[in-house]
Amino acid sequence: MFKAAIIQQSFTRDIKFNTEKCAENIKIAAKNGAKLIALSELHNSLYFCQSEDVSIFDLAEEIPGKSTEFFGKLAQDLNVVLVLSLFERRARGLYHNTAVVVERTGEVAGIFRKMHIPEDPSFYEKFYFAPGDLGFKPIATSLGKIGVLVCWDQWYPEAARIMALNGAEILIYPTAIGWDPNDSLDEKNRQLDAWITIQRSHGIANALPVLSINRAGLEKGHNNEGCGIDFWGHSFIAGSQGEFLARSTDQNETILYAEINYSQIDRTRNIWPFLRDRRIDFYADLLKRFGG
Amino acid sequence: MFKAAIIQQSFTRDIKFNTEKCAENIKIAAKNGAKLIALSELHNSLYFCQSEDVSIFDLAEEIPGKSTEFFGKLAQDLNVVLVLSLFERRARGLYHNTAVVVERTGEVAGIFRKMHIPEDPSFYEKFYFAPGDLGFKPIATSLGKIGVLVCWDQWYPEAARIMALNGAEILIYPTAIGWDPNDSLDEKNRQLDAWITIQRSHGIANALPVLSINRAGLEKGHNNEGCGIDFWGHSFIAGSQGEFLARSTDQNETILYAEINYSQIDRTRNIWPFLRDRRIDFYADLLKRFGG
Repeated sequence: MFKAAIIQQSFTRDIKFNTEKCAENIKIAAKNGAKLIALSELHNSLYFCQSEDVSIFDLAEEIPGKSTEFFGKLAQDLNVVLVLSLFERRARGLYHNTAVVVERTGEVAGIFRKMHIPEDPSFYEKFYFAPGDLGFKPIATSLGKIGVLVCWDQWYPEAARIMALNGAEILIYPTAIGWDPNDSLDEKNRQLDAWITIQRSHGIANALPVLSINRAGLEKGHNNEGCGIDFWGHSFIAGSQGEFLARSTDQNETILYAEINYSQIDRTRNIWPFLRDRRIDFYADLLKRFGG
Repeated sequence: MFKAAIIQQSFTRDIKFNTEKCAENIKIAAKNGAKLIALSELHNSLYFCQSEDVSIFDLAEEIPGKSTEFFGKLAQDLNVVLVLSLFERRARGLYHNTAVVVERTGEVAGIFRKMHIPEDPSFYEKFYFAPGDLGFKPIATSLGKIGVLVCWDQWYPEAARIMALNGAEILIYPTAIGWDPNDSLDEKNRQLDAWITIQRSHGIANALPVLSINRAGLEKGHNNEGCGIDFWGHSFIAGSQGEFLARSTDQNETILYAEINYSQIDRTRNIWPFLRDRRIDFYADLLKRFGG
């Protein structure tokens, strides 16, 4: 049993300011007893995918690199496990949207490269990120096997399921999702509720706790283009039955805490033994794009 | 665009009474303009799986058989599509939990045999039902391709996904789920909320409307054994973003109605093109029981 914290915050154009703000929030969370602390998606910068701009590739960094060094030292100082989300420069002209789990020793415990890459107006991620090629593998840490998935991955029950089948004990979704300011209130509410619902459902289907960490507040794009994205906050921590353990109900900056108890996974799975009854003899169509 | 209705009702030991009550409710729904009408799981009888009793096999019937004849005539008279849930006798000593879609001509449009079979205290289904062997195939009707799944199937995102990939335009879950009267209020609320959440999530993941039809009220077992199951009602109809179109918030008998508009599927999928980005190159582990 340990305390987890998730940090819902806003970001600026100033990368040094952002990383130091993240560090300050991590220190607060650690001071409050958190042992596992997770940040939102691409927390070092603005969400830069609101337009396609070649110069933005200069923001990418190597892993390990300056961020894993900076946050690794912090993890070691505070004796905590950190979940980071970075713009990875893997090779010249090859980039990924990559989550990094840093062990309390300061070492990189493992990485996850975002597998499902979105592309729609104001979210031009297919321009920036190559699809991940590491699959859905939980990362072993001193706090259990951590299944990190990133944002758009959260819409795919396949991703959460494979993480669970590969032994994940917790699902963590660093996220950058928000409203188009021009949408109607009804549409905004449907989108927000769908986003909460589907992530809770992954916890339910697999009897795993879920941490979802979103950015907060309106961001104009990197080049001040368009109306911006109104990042809707509403980060939450859910238990193994999908129940809320902690939640934000707005776009304000906040740190949320919850006690994570992996023995609840056993309890829930013993009551509802979904894994026992999967019809693996009839799931082959899942490997198709469409059609039976 | 058409109106759908779902019938949330209670049942008795008297099969003739139950079927006539279902018929009366179907007539009301049809009179109110419903063109697609769905009943809850195993609506001809009590939920008989609360104990293992060989004599209960006598309740099973052939498909086509007396129920498809009775409800087929009703469908034809009322010019509606019906979704039934029957205890199928397939051969001597071989039984299934089978949903039947009846066309407005009165003919059987197709059947679905429950694929995921539960087994836990008061739900001894593995004793009564062989697992389905028809897979996850939507049933073509005059009201589109109907993806019927039954109760325990509702916990499996795989089932809903394959239905969607095979062209389903709507997901329908006849269900019999309830509380153990001895559970705490907190546990009851977690279970109910998990049940609603995961079914809505299948609609969200696949951008499909979802109809979930549950039994209502306390039933002692067929032999009056145990404390019974308190069937929790809370049936609902959700749209292609998981939003509620109609819902019961209690265990009272009710008929719920909603307008179903398949063009919403296109709209939702065009905004959130989840099907485009599935990583079918990395889903092979879904065909394993456990382990990477």
